[in-house]
Amino acid sequence: MSRGADSRPAVVLLSGGLDSATALAIAREQGFDCHALSLDYGQRHRAELEAARRVAEAQGVREHRILPIDLAAFGGSALTDPDIAVPEGPSEGIPVTYVPARNTIFLSLALAWAEVLGARDLFVGVNAVDYSGYPDCRPEYIEAFERLANLATRAGVEGVAIRVHAPLIRMTKAEIIRTGVRLGVDYGLTLSCYAADARGRACGRCDSCRLRAAGFAAAGVPDPTAYQAESA
Amino acid sequence: MSRGADSRPAVVLLSGGLDSATALAIAREQGFDCHALSLDYGQRHRAELEAARRVAEAQGVREHRILPIDLAAFGGSALTDPDIAVPEGPSEGIPVTYVPARNTIFLSLALAWAEVLGARDLFVGVNAVDYSGYPDCRPEYIEAFERLANLATRAGVEGVAIRVHAPLIRMTKAEIIRTGVRLGVDYGLTLSCYAADARGRACGRCDSCRLRAAGFAAAGVPDPTAYQAESA
Repeated sequence: MSRGADSRPAVVLLSGGLDSATALAIAREQGFDCHALSLDYGQRHRAELEAARRVAEAQGVREHRILPIDLAAFGGSALTDPDIAVPEGPSEGIPVTYVPARNTIFLSLALAWAEVLGARDLFVGVNAVDYSGYPDCRPEYIEAFERLANLATRAGVEGVAIRVHAPLIRMTKAEIIRTGVRLGVDYGLTLSCYAADARGRACGRCDSCRLRAAGFAAAGVPDPTAYQAESA
Repeated sequence: MSRGADSRPAVVLLSGGLDSATALAIAREQGFDCHALSLDYGQRHRAELEAARRVAEAQGVREHRILPIDLAAFGGSALTDPDIAVPEGPSEGIPVTYVPARNTIFLSLALAWAEVLGARDLFVGVNAVDYSGYPDCRPEYIEAFERLANLATRAGVEGVAIRVHAPLIRMTKAEIIRTGVRLGVDYGLTLSCYAADARGRACGRCDSCRLRAAGFAAAGVPDPTAYQAESA
């Protein structure tokens, strides 16, 4: 595999949303040669994968892979189970949009690819501030995964430390957006909505849309999101 | 989902090999209502999945799922990459049959299913004694995964402990076989070979075949394995 002479490989989890697009830009700014991984996990919001393709292309990653993994087979989440509705209002506790063990599965797959590439660095755009109540977005979770990764792999046995970077974990949504704007991220390419239509337009009502819109407002950045209502 | 009144659900990773068949029998002996999960991960030894089906049926699991996950897309292992040969002699260090991050991926998927089922118990047949040098078969690895599982999930947030059972982890192969025989496991249904033929007959030469044959010899149990040479 060809790479820049000074550039270490990293695997970046890329969902197509605002957060992971920013995490990718941060990885690139830190000089990593980025291999982007998206998971086609039976999510309702399929337009997300199109957004991931656009973001990967716009940011010039080394390689972008979309791996199918049928989490809908297990069900249990509004994002994969058509019988569970995506809520339009705020929710308490862990929301129904939580996908069981999603980040653990995604990080495990990123770890597998990293091991094959000889990469020691994983990037994930999780965020503990505006984290929607998901348990697998907390700093202690990321630390536990990093510890596991170093026990799980060839690298760990050979004493090469694997690092799991979660550069957004303590940022507010507004800070994430300001960072991305500084790094040239085109948020018009991203899609955060849990209930986007087939053309990739956001609903404007789900948890994810509300957090995102509030983030643009707080950052003082014009919201580039295409909403369903606007062009209906 | 219907279950026995006194029976707690557990998710058991079932490869079709000798170890996981024994782990399943132990989970059943402990009174768990077993949901068996096999992964169709692009392994060369596809006959393993047929063995998993036979074992699941013979042991009367509540449900057996085979989930496709294309680890061959990443390559890096003799078990998924046709360009890497399965070695016939003993190897030093981590062998080429090691599949990057395999147990982490499999346990993550088991965790996702457990969360949907409301199960708190996962069973995996890893073994640290005759473990072939795989990093993700060590007790400290299993402990780290259990810690992660309790941070990753709804159960963890709600204070319900998840347990990762690795009942074989400190047993020799002979002890595993004696335990399984006591519990009525029919090892003639299982397949451990990395290079089985299309009819599921073992090569008798790979690491896994050699460990298995030595285990039957040490346990003083007749080896029920169908070898390619016998019927060639």
